[in-house]
Amino acid sequence: MINVAVLGYGTIGAGVVQVLQTNVESIAKNAGQPIVVKRILDLREFPGDPNEKLVVHDYNIIKEDEDIQIVVECMGGLNPAYTFVKTALEQGRSVATSNKELVAKYGAELIATARANACNFLFEASVGGGIPLIRPLTSCLTADVIQEITGILNGTTNYMLTKMGEEGRAFEDVLKEAQERGYAELHPEADVEGYDACRKIAILTSLISGYQVNFEDIHTEGITHITAEDFRYAKAMNSGIKLLAKSWKKDGNNYAMVAPMLVGHDHPLYAVRDVFNAIFVHGNMVDDIMFYGKGAGKLPTASAVVSDVVESAKALGVNHRIFWSPEKLSLQSLAKCEGRYFVRMDKEVSPEDIEESFGPVDYISVDGIDETAFVTGIMTEGSYRRAAASLGHVIQMIRVYSKS
Amino acid sequence: MINVAVLGYGTIGAGVVQVLQTNVESIAKNAGQPIVVKRILDLREFPGDPNEKLVVHDYNIIKEDEDIQIVVECMGGLNPAYTFVKTALEQGRSVATSNKELVAKYGAELIATARANACNFLFEASVGGGIPLIRPLTSCLTADVIQEITGILNGTTNYMLTKMGEEGRAFEDVLKEAQERGYAELHPEADVEGYDACRKIAILTSLISGYQVNFEDIHTEGITHITAEDFRYAKAMNSGIKLLAKSWKKDGNNYAMVAPMLVGHDHPLYAVRDVFNAIFVHGNMVDDIMFYGKGAGKLPTASAVVSDVVESAKALGVNHRIFWSPEKLSLQSLAKCEGRYFVRMDKEVSPEDIEESFGPVDYISVDGIDETAFVTGIMTEGSYRRAAASLGHVIQMIRVYSKS
Repeated sequence: MINVAVLGYGTIGAGVVQVLQTNVESIAKNAGQPIVVKRILDLREFPGDPNEKLVVHDYNIIKEDEDIQIVVECMGGLNPAYTFVKTALEQGRSVATSNKELVAKYGAELIATARANACNFLFEASVGGGIPLIRPLTSCLTADVIQEITGILNGTTNYMLTKMGEEGRAFEDVLKEAQERGYAELHPEADVEGYDACRKIAILTSLISGYQVNFEDIHTEGITHITAEDFRYAKAMNSGIKLLAKSWKKDGNNYAMVAPMLVGHDHPLYAVRDVFNAIFVHGNMVDDIMFYGKGAGKLPTASAVVSDVVESAKALGVNHRIFWSPEKLSLQSLAKCEGRYFVRMDKEVSPEDIEESFGPVDYISVDGIDETAFVTGIMTEGSYRRAAASLGHVIQMIRVYSKS
Repeated sequence: MINVAVLGYGTIGAGVVQVLQTNVESIAKNAGQPIVVKRILDLREFPGDPNEKLVVHDYNIIKEDEDIQIVVECMGGLNPAYTFVKTALEQGRSVATSNKELVAKYGAELIATARANACNFLFEASVGGGIPLIRPLTSCLTADVIQEITGILNGTTNYMLTKMGEEGRAFEDVLKEAQERGYAELHPEADVEGYDACRKIAILTSLISGYQVNFEDIHTEGITHITAEDFRYAKAMNSGIKLLAKSWKKDGNNYAMVAPMLVGHDHPLYAVRDVFNAIFVHGNMVDDIMFYGKGAGKLPTASAVVSDVVESAKALGVNHRIFWSPEKLSLQSLAKCEGRYFVRMDKEVSPEDIEESFGPVDYISVDGIDETAFVTGIMTEGSYRRAAASLGHVIQMIRVYSKS
């Protein structure tokens, strides 16, 4: 029998306890022995909760309980999560976490601590919620050189963009609905400004490169400037607009960015609707693959956390190597990356001036929108920016997604 | 350094050698040491091939070479593949295979042999080609009770159905094109009659149930009877037609079948086009997830085989448990499963007679097709069959896919 302590009895923590107490038999079979929740750390009391008596308020009780072999961290935030996780790993206890801030900031260090103490620091739930992604990347796609990962990593914004695209509604309108349905926070910046997706792509880039990627280094744009008109153009181009977190390698350089992009209808990311997440991966041998599922939610996220608990239980005393060194990865400036750009301008600009600045372009028109819109040819983002700045009159620019 | 022998130097075998010789560095890093192809078994000679000197014609040379630690089987067919694999496992050598016939027939036995000899029998490439699927099922979704797996597991038929749906063409016409492009065999029965998908869903059902499923027990229909008219109806219902291999558990009973089904446009399997494969999984905690990618092809399939080689290299001397007992799983008769049925009838039958037999139905009409078509309400397949047999006049029946 393996005893687990769960830190944090909020939504995810309660989900972890629920999964462990519901799928008792199948989890015991997969882990090789029963897994039991012995302690739950939370500052609050939970009167009437069936696990009421497991709740403690002092981490030292868990630290000093020698029966505890695996620690689950679902508190969120950097502190005291970091201190508790570090302490547990130093005691040789494996830790499973759903905390993307913790992983993005301290992943390299905590992986090294786990290795030094013959245990494991696992974080399947930190990216893509319930979607098996981290372990497939680290233990399935081991024959490939991963050249690109592009993900819809934030369910809230994908829900909003789906509503805007399918119902022709405005950003503020769908934000309000998302807040009413509990998909978006009252302060929605982490989602709508792309910060959440940014931390997740930082984690994925660290994993595929083996080096530390600081999320602050990743160019990040949100969706607050996307309008119903943009979707009308997208439809005319047989495309959707998705908030993509993209990380890729080209000519030996690493790039990463988060931004809304136009996705053509024949790409599998196009069909990812509603709150779902999906992660598209291109390897030099396996070609294109995609993982799809619920990127958030109590039980899907808890499912991923518990799968890490099972993995830890199967590997007691054995560290499974994850390559993520503290050495920093230099990301190449986006100015050097190449792509095509969808641009909306007011009508004052002449085709001659446009083509002088941007070269040959493909014009797009939509009934009832009185402006000039086009898609550029392939150019570096630096060239695009210079052309746009010198010409002026740009109402909107959305990058056109293409496989790198 | 780990020495590998590759059995069979056809498309997949040559792909395995190519992957191992191309991604040398990243594979060595992931495996913890370099992996080298020492011998290739094939009856043919390969004059001019860079690996010409590695080719041997006698399996005993490999069997007696004590340097060989891992064997890759890409010969296909049951014999002599079975004998060679069994011998290797009995020698304590891990085996990676892409051979779905071998896995479907002898999976339980070879897994037990590997366990008894502290090595591994791995078969990631046998279902879904390059898509990481088997290991995610056995080592990621370990917190869940898997309630359904539904896959597009055959790229050839998905290519054909995509062409029929998007271009309004007839079965024979797209089959000819698929044959010309090398996607379909001259004798295409294994694909178009669903036999290939049947073996794959048998493997997946064995893995999620833990018991042996004989592919002969799985109800299997192909796509030879699907017509351009069916696709016109499908379009009117905002659906596609896909050859689905479905395995599910309901009220304690296990069901499995392979058949063309109508898939609604809001289901992620709808968007899986061309030669791609996808596997939709529903777990009681993780909810819906899907894995997407190339289900065939030299390098994608080889990528999966080599990922098994890496996994074997990381686990030399250690067996990773896979639950697949030789005890047989009883599949429930399809007559007892519930669903909705799309039915086309000639016009002679009156609505009164239809509703008397099938209960309330939703009628579908398509310009220029002079017949009666409808979708039934939810009924057991047994009830459907009795109603259809007693009423007669059925031109076509296609099941409507729904999550079980």
